[in-house]
Amino acid sequence: MTNVTRPFNFSAGPAMLPKPVLEQALAEMINWHSSGMAVMEMSHRSPEFKLIAEQAQRNLRDVLAIPDNYKVLFLQGGASTQFSMIPMNLLRGSKEADYFNTGMWSKKAIAEAKRYCKVNIPVDSTDNKFTTVAEIDNLNPNAAYVHYTPNETIHGLEFHNIPEVGDVPLVADMSSTLLSRPIDISKYGLIYAGAQKNIGSAGLTLVIIREDLVGHAMPNTPTMLNYKTHVDSDSMYNTPPTYSWYIAGLVFKWIKNTGGLIEMGKRNKRKADILYATIDNSEFYNNPVAPAYRSWMNVPFILKNPELDKIFLTEAKEASLLTLSGHRSIGGMRASIYNAMPEEGVQALIDFMIDFEKRKG
Amino acid sequence: MTNVTRPFNFSAGPAMLPKPVLEQALAEMINWHSSGMAVMEMSHRSPEFKLIAEQAQRNLRDVLAIPDNYKVLFLQGGASTQFSMIPMNLLRGSKEADYFNTGMWSKKAIAEAKRYCKVNIPVDSTDNKFTTVAEIDNLNPNAAYVHYTPNETIHGLEFHNIPEVGDVPLVADMSSTLLSRPIDISKYGLIYAGAQKNIGSAGLTLVIIREDLVGHAMPNTPTMLNYKTHVDSDSMYNTPPTYSWYIAGLVFKWIKNTGGLIEMGKRNKRKADILYATIDNSEFYNNPVAPAYRSWMNVPFILKNPELDKIFLTEAKEASLLTLSGHRSIGGMRASIYNAMPEEGVQALIDFMIDFEKRKG
Repeated sequence: MTNVTRPFNFSAGPAMLPKPVLEQALAEMINWHSSGMAVMEMSHRSPEFKLIAEQAQRNLRDVLAIPDNYKVLFLQGGASTQFSMIPMNLLRGSKEADYFNTGMWSKKAIAEAKRYCKVNIPVDSTDNKFTTVAEIDNLNPNAAYVHYTPNETIHGLEFHNIPEVGDVPLVADMSSTLLSRPIDISKYGLIYAGAQKNIGSAGLTLVIIREDLVGHAMPNTPTMLNYKTHVDSDSMYNTPPTYSWYIAGLVFKWIKNTGGLIEMGKRNKRKADILYATIDNSEFYNNPVAPAYRSWMNVPFILKNPELDKIFLTEAKEASLLTLSGHRSIGGMRASIYNAMPEEGVQALIDFMIDFEKRKG
Repeated sequence: MTNVTRPFNFSAGPAMLPKPVLEQALAEMINWHSSGMAVMEMSHRSPEFKLIAEQAQRNLRDVLAIPDNYKVLFLQGGASTQFSMIPMNLLRGSKEADYFNTGMWSKKAIAEAKRYCKVNIPVDSTDNKFTTVAEIDNLNPNAAYVHYTPNETIHGLEFHNIPEVGDVPLVADMSSTLLSRPIDISKYGLIYAGAQKNIGSAGLTLVIIREDLVGHAMPNTPTMLNYKTHVDSDSMYNTPPTYSWYIAGLVFKWIKNTGGLIEMGKRNKRKADILYATIDNSEFYNNPVAPAYRSWMNVPFILKNPELDKIFLTEAKEASLLTLSGHRSIGGMRASIYNAMPEEGVQALIDFMIDFEKRKG
């Protein structure tokens, strides 16, 4: 594989995996460390898989500098299942929660939370079409927690600072931004993330939860939707998604070996900066998001002439630049440039965009 | 890989995968069908993955002869999540359900159901230590459904006929038996199964549900725990466990190419028959389950002298016979011999057992 040219895949998720991760998974696929078993064939209670699981957690804790009073859970069900688990576990007798609305994922979290409590929305980006985030000015003092979505994949809106919410637990859907840069875990009550962007393969959901928030689930919470179930069993209450857990472990090790989150953050900022500069320096491409809130992970842009969308996508594919179509709800293009997207991939996209503009602009 | 001798892995799950499935997964790992992408890197909404998903479902429907009025769902969360989803979705206003208790998995299903309704137990194998199943004599006429576990992995107790329950929907946890032989789907209201035994890799849960049972969830059912959510979106409401779905598709194709469930059933019966015969013909090994209820999939047995357990396991491992330790709750040994366990694997175990008895008996 080392000598094969891989195309650059700009999918919003599931997305590209780092090449060294795929290479190691390939080498170990049939016979993991002379065990005679594929990882997929191992009992989750075997010494072999326990080692894989523990190493993955240790490397994640290292990379994110997770404090000791936080538990890390390896779950299933995606962020969509978290949308229910959060109110069911974190309301703790309260009937109110604060949710920021900064895009489609925020809206989905809000819709589900409304089934369990009164939702107050201190920040709403609907009026500015999800191009910026207004001042936060009416946090509810009775809210059990404040929920927000640090990065919205569809409109490409990202918080570059942690919102100040006082002592109320801050809850974040980091599906599309976790591991893209260093973060201060201690500012959060709970962080969750589907794996299929920066973490690994689909089917795994990471949860990082402060210990004092565990053990307060509503009476009718399904056992599998109670964080305590998974905290008490080290995420082995039932069979976990073993292969996704293993792949995530390879990704964590790759991040560590590549310079950690400081290096990831530098690379991601550089990639985003040159792509936004290309868009801003052109009359042909446009991104409407306020510079202070532009996503490092998902860069949506439109062509001035949408009739060229199809030919842009076709020619991009011929140039080995895959999955650049924008989300069906807003059209245009979207380049998702997670950790695994190399800088030369972004440069190849930029070269193509400039050339396309020259020929069609 | 074709020339490498693989050990035989008797794990209860996650368990062995068919060798041709692992070989195909290996060959396609980095670059699926010249797409330039690994399956793990594909958007679940891409044409490539949609093809994989549809082919998997089509082959499963073929192999199981699933009638058109049944939906097939590819979910996450394991059987343990189904333990909640079933009462939440199938009670349909009723407050009572029937559950057979024939082992540890039955008990787990019952414990979770009791949180949502009154559970009546028409069959209870506790008194006979889960070695047989008594006559069913007191089905509750008001039960919304009847739940049972056709195969119990720990005690090795299996139903070889479908219980007669009249018009009440029959619900079955087939995690450890689905695809091991032909079954008449039309006798069931709902069938569910974790993938990590006969279906594929952990992290995928199959549900086969009769259409009229969809759409009756309790008001507070989390969106992700409502079958309707997944029926309405062809299991793509959120990102599904794409790689596990792909592996399951390879397994379904392998079953089809190997002669389907009739052939699987013949092989599984032969494997079980020779292993139980070895146990019964010996004074050294013992299995206490009534012959009419002995599992084809999980064969627990004890050594007359439990002090030999450790040396049995050590020597078995040296003979490339892995993961034969019995469940921690009952000790002894357990050979799980799902579809992917070749007949020569069972023969190798038998040869080892006979030799061990000669030397130590």
